[in-house]
Amino acid sequence: MITDYSQRLIIQEVSPRDGLQIEPVWVETADKINLINELSSCGFSRIEAGSFVSPKAIPALRDGEQVFQGIKRHAGVIYVALIPNLKGAQRAIQANADELNLVLSASQSHNQANMRMTREQSLAAFDEVVSLARDSTVRLNGTVATTFGCPFEGHIDEDVVMRLVEAYLELGVQGITLADTTGMANPRQVYRLVQRLLGRLPASAITLHFHNTRGLGLSNVLAAYEAGARRFDASLGGLGGCPFAPGASGNICTEDLVNLCDEMGITTGIDLQKLLTLSRTLPSLLGHDLPGQVVKAGRNCDLHPLPRH
Amino acid sequence: MITDYSQRLIIQEVSPRDGLQIEPVWVETADKINLINELSSCGFSRIEAGSFVSPKAIPALRDGEQVFQGIKRHAGVIYVALIPNLKGAQRAIQANADELNLVLSASQSHNQANMRMTREQSLAAFDEVVSLARDSTVRLNGTVATTFGCPFEGHIDEDVVMRLVEAYLELGVQGITLADTTGMANPRQVYRLVQRLLGRLPASAITLHFHNTRGLGLSNVLAAYEAGARRFDASLGGLGGCPFAPGASGNICTEDLVNLCDEMGITTGIDLQKLLTLSRTLPSLLGHDLPGQVVKAGRNCDLHPLPRH
Repeated sequence: MITDYSQRLIIQEVSPRDGLQIEPVWVETADKINLINELSSCGFSRIEAGSFVSPKAIPALRDGEQVFQGIKRHAGVIYVALIPNLKGAQRAIQANADELNLVLSASQSHNQANMRMTREQSLAAFDEVVSLARDSTVRLNGTVATTFGCPFEGHIDEDVVMRLVEAYLELGVQGITLADTTGMANPRQVYRLVQRLLGRLPASAITLHFHNTRGLGLSNVLAAYEAGARRFDASLGGLGGCPFAPGASGNICTEDLVNLCDEMGITTGIDLQKLLTLSRTLPSLLGHDLPGQVVKAGRNCDLHPLPRH
Repeated sequence: MITDYSQRLIIQEVSPRDGLQIEPVWVETADKINLINELSSCGFSRIEAGSFVSPKAIPALRDGEQVFQGIKRHAGVIYVALIPNLKGAQRAIQANADELNLVLSASQSHNQANMRMTREQSLAAFDEVVSLARDSTVRLNGTVATTFGCPFEGHIDEDVVMRLVEAYLELGVQGITLADTTGMANPRQVYRLVQRLLGRLPASAITLHFHNTRGLGLSNVLAAYEAGARRFDASLGGLGGCPFAPGASGNICTEDLVNLCDEMGITTGIDLQKLLTLSRTLPSLLGHDLPGQVVKAGRNCDLHPLPRH
């Protein structure tokens, strides 16, 4: 372990989008706005604040416009919107999103299941988004879902991922996210692919999105960090499940990641105490427990009184 | 990551002891015996099968004698018993345990809370155990609890841990376990201390015992493996909680660790499929859900059918 832990680790908070999107309970627009405002004050530099997809497909996020228009913009925070197509991009730019996050899947079957089109059709549709974005100041990020494995097909060839990355770069995106959509990645695989991607792009243009579905989320973050990656998605409380694994975790938990970084001496710029206070509000907002661990166990420095015998 | 992943990782299964000891539900002796027999057939070379402590202190394991006498001994499997003192050692040897696991805490306050004596008193008591063991074929292992942090005192000085290791070795134990009793370790700390310990002992004499209380259990296993450690404790289903963190995980989950190893190409000799089948029996045996993830998500190779639109 010859890693330089002095390098800052940047966390993009995704609970307002990837966290809430499969929640069965409707979260009021005002509560979403409040969550994003509180997150903004915790020290994040990037927040995925909503999506602009069909309200039929993702009813939980049908209020994207009101959310983006209602939040208090903090200086230095980039507010990202997930968009599936041109219509979504138009709505997101109209709502003043700072960055659009495009998504396609490394596996053809997952793209078909998720987006109802082939990867080639997805890329063709993104071409129109890029043209639209050229007339605005909005930034573009391209996500490759199922990079590390597909729930329908299993193993994904790294060359396929790299070809999709090239296609995104040719389109003109500024950033690339490699997403482990259903938690199939392992640290050895992650290290290898991140090293390969760093041969093509600087660390500042690469985000890793891991799920903890099989308990490996934070191990994969560390492997990617050791390989040179610096930007990671995470979700408050570990909010956001996996549709294929009832009861299993989805997104990696932001406060657990910040705690790991604090303990290892890696700077994140995020206030863990504030984050834990915010995380404690989620169970009553959503009506269920969340998979985050540090919120239950406390930080290492939260000492316990000696038992009395 | 210049690790040689061809090195075998040895898992000592601890669910029958560390897993069951704080379960509020009484598990019948026959069910304990059945669990251990099933574990024996999964490919483990070491199983911590019970403890010989005061039945008042740990009522859940008061049937240690019957368990050790009732299990079917598999060739090549070492059946370990945890013992706190001479009386426990006498009972364990009588019950034909292959190895005695002694425990003391790196922190004085935790030793006092857990064992009701000082560390020095613990060591003096172990002296009698060693004398007794000399007249038998039983092996001895010494565990240093709270090695990576104490819930009452916080940070633990590595020199204190190393001094206790030396005290154990002077007594004549064959193996040392460093235990992260309440899940306070981080991978950077683990890597450093394992490297230091490997300067004193061969990898075959060192076991690491991690808890997942703050979500870092498997990350710590990988850090220790990368530093050269090869032996790890783990518990089926992640059975065994943390008394200081209701709702948080305790022991790292065996099948999640085996899955990690399988995916990374690290040999364990353990049959994951069999292990998952056994893990699925735990919720009905114990009356509650367990923190293991792979049992809920399936292995990567357990593919899902395509959704029909």
